[in-house]
Amino acid sequence: MVQYPQLDKTFAALADPTRRGVLERLGRGSATITQLAEPFGISLTGMKKHVRVLEEAELVTTEKVGRVRRCSLGPRRLQDVEEWTQMYRRMLDERLDRFGELLERTKGTQS
Amino acid sequence: MVQYPQLDKTFAALADPTRRGVLERLGRGSATITQLAEPFGISLTGMKKHVRVLEEAELVTTEKVGRVRRCSLGPRRLQDVEEWTQMYRRMLDERLDRFGELLERTKGTQS
Repeated sequence: MVQYPQLDKTFAALADPTRRGVLERLGRGSATITQLAEPFGISLTGMKKHVRVLEEAELVTTEKVGRVRRCSLGPRRLQDVEEWTQMYRRMLDERLDRFGELLERTKGTQS
Repeated sequence: MVQYPQLDKTFAALADPTRRGVLERLGRGSATITQLAEPFGISLTGMKKHVRVLEEAELVTTEKVGRVRRCSLGPRRLQDVEEWTQMYRRMLDERLDRFGELLERTKGTQS
């Protein structure tokens, strides 16, 4: 079992369409909580909660500027998610290969 | 905002080390709930819950054989997770490129 300590928080943070939308929005530049909330039609309180989850997963950083909280993309680049999914795909491919070999051998036995 | 209808369930299912461990275990071949529960040291009820979450995300299929439930990997291959993370990486790369261009232009202004 491959361990990635941050992976639980990352996957949980990404398991919500609003939070993924916030990341896509922040990819175009930093924004305040109000600017983030508006296009999704949710309350400021709701958006603050989403941003906190993203912050805990280190996907977003926030900075208080006067009375306004500015949000930007955090330093994490989802390498752990990519590595895990690639590992999973390799495992499935190997399984398919073994299945293919088995089929070949079965054909050999029958002919 | 890119929409993948199954992505919420997939990410939520993957946000747990036991469930990721179950997928890795099933990659080596099908197993009963008892066989899955044992190495993780959790109860059958606990493992049944994890398997149900994986089943709802279509990552695992189960089949009742007599009194025993056999679990295997489902047909999904996490393409949506890979596509989303690749899209996110491209977005970050483009942002870095733009930042690099801005730096170049700033240097040009100063020289």
